[in-house]
Amino acid sequence: MAKRIAYLGPPGTFTEEAALLYDETAQLIPFPSIPAVAVAVDSGMAEEGVVPIENSIEGSVTDTLDLLIHESRVLIRKELVLPIEHHLLVKPGTQVSEVRVIFSHPQALGQCRHFIERCFPKVEIVAALSTAAAVEEMMTSDYPAAAIGTRRAAELYGAETSAKAIQDQASNVTRFVVLAPTDHPATGFDKTSLCFSFAEDRPGVLCAVLQEFAQRTINLAKVESRPTKESLGKYIFLVDLEGHHDDPLVSEALARVREKTALFKVFGSYPKYK
Amino acid sequence: MAKRIAYLGPPGTFTEEAALLYDETAQLIPFPSIPAVAVAVDSGMAEEGVVPIENSIEGSVTDTLDLLIHESRVLIRKELVLPIEHHLLVKPGTQVSEVRVIFSHPQALGQCRHFIERCFPKVEIVAALSTAAAVEEMMTSDYPAAAIGTRRAAELYGAETSAKAIQDQASNVTRFVVLAPTDHPATGFDKTSLCFSFAEDRPGVLCAVLQEFAQRTINLAKVESRPTKESLGKYIFLVDLEGHHDDPLVSEALARVREKTALFKVFGSYPKYK
Repeated sequence: MAKRIAYLGPPGTFTEEAALLYDETAQLIPFPSIPAVAVAVDSGMAEEGVVPIENSIEGSVTDTLDLLIHESRVLIRKELVLPIEHHLLVKPGTQVSEVRVIFSHPQALGQCRHFIERCFPKVEIVAALSTAAAVEEMMTSDYPAAAIGTRRAAELYGAETSAKAIQDQASNVTRFVVLAPTDHPATGFDKTSLCFSFAEDRPGVLCAVLQEFAQRTINLAKVESRPTKESLGKYIFLVDLEGHHDDPLVSEALARVREKTALFKVFGSYPKYK
Repeated sequence: MAKRIAYLGPPGTFTEEAALLYDETAQLIPFPSIPAVAVAVDSGMAEEGVVPIENSIEGSVTDTLDLLIHESRVLIRKELVLPIEHHLLVKPGTQVSEVRVIFSHPQALGQCRHFIERCFPKVEIVAALSTAAAVEEMMTSDYPAAAIGTRRAAELYGAETSAKAIQDQASNVTRFVVLAPTDHPATGFDKTSLCFSFAEDRPGVLCAVLQEFAQRTINLAKVESRPTKESLGKYIFLVDLEGHHDDPLVSEALARVREKTALFKVFGSYPKYK
């Protein structure tokens, strides 16, 4: 039986593209939200789940971080990095000069703002709940319309690509993670993601933790603070470090950090994406 | 002449509420994007500008951070904190049981997901470009509809509030900043926001910088890393610290940090919100 992979749907989104890139032989099952993907993995409806975690322009996907911090027993087993390309899609045969309406998700519209202002200064902009929903609405629209969506959505809905890679920022990439009940064995080229917070907010506490890594020459790939859900003033720190939690030095550093922090949770170790 | 304050519009959004809270006697001028607000201040179209910078649930507003990092000569002069309350609005006289469509911005819809699932399991959800646009669309809709929007939008469009504070997370607050050509003189109860990055990514560089603050007992209110626009692997660090850049110890620490970093930029010092 094919492996079942839950992903943040609907079909035709970038997350589906990432899941296909990861395992094109798997049975892909769309779920309506990021927490739903985690529940699917946790409950055995799927062996693994794919969700976005970070975009080079928008920053972190907070739903995924909050899930890893607060809710779920799933771990990160893999990371995937996908270039994000927005395309201008139309019904086959539609002339670009006729287009009166452009459908898309507000985030995609924001990422293509310059293109729209230059090429379609007078067009009506209509929001959709996802880029896939936008393509569907465009295909059933009564007047000449376009949608901003993925290559995969064009395939699924039979749309024609009238302009490629129309996003303002050329280097737009998203990092996805594969969630599973267990993380990945060490490969010698790994990353580990974790979070921690402090009982008390005094000068130097974060520095003392980062020193545990620095003095063992463990490089940090990322440090981020998220407000706790209760208030803006209290923070949870998220760290990605280079190495596997089974590496002796990493394991030692993690044990010391655990002693110095109030909340402490390792999200998993996994191979670093090329 | 009244002070002119640019803000992220349209009228009826939370940013307008924040601007009114800050100065209800000012002339408020809506702009269509966060960069446009900064341009308005930089070019003298307005004396000050109000934009959101951080939400307790969604995290940082990346457009505002990117603007402060990369683009603008404006500084942070003040911070404001506003509780975010979403309301269910209808045309006066509409019965909730008749509602067939709910309009809102996808982010507001996400923040009220539990409420909608419980109270309106069968309703059609329609995306809008802003919560204010959603209220406008609801008011002109042909069939019985509702919109998720602000108290201020209800006022502006003459809508009736049929349910109050329907967001899933009770403690949802947003931090706004007032942008101006100069920052704020020291008050003795201040914060300073800055960013820096490193030419080389080696273990311990971030720690060495944080130590400059820790050894002077300067408390950090926030540490965050943002991917640089070029790639996911390189980061810019954003720090909020307690104190004013004119305080001798802060000034000394900032000078040392400047020497240790490649990019270094102070966004301003301003009074800490209550």
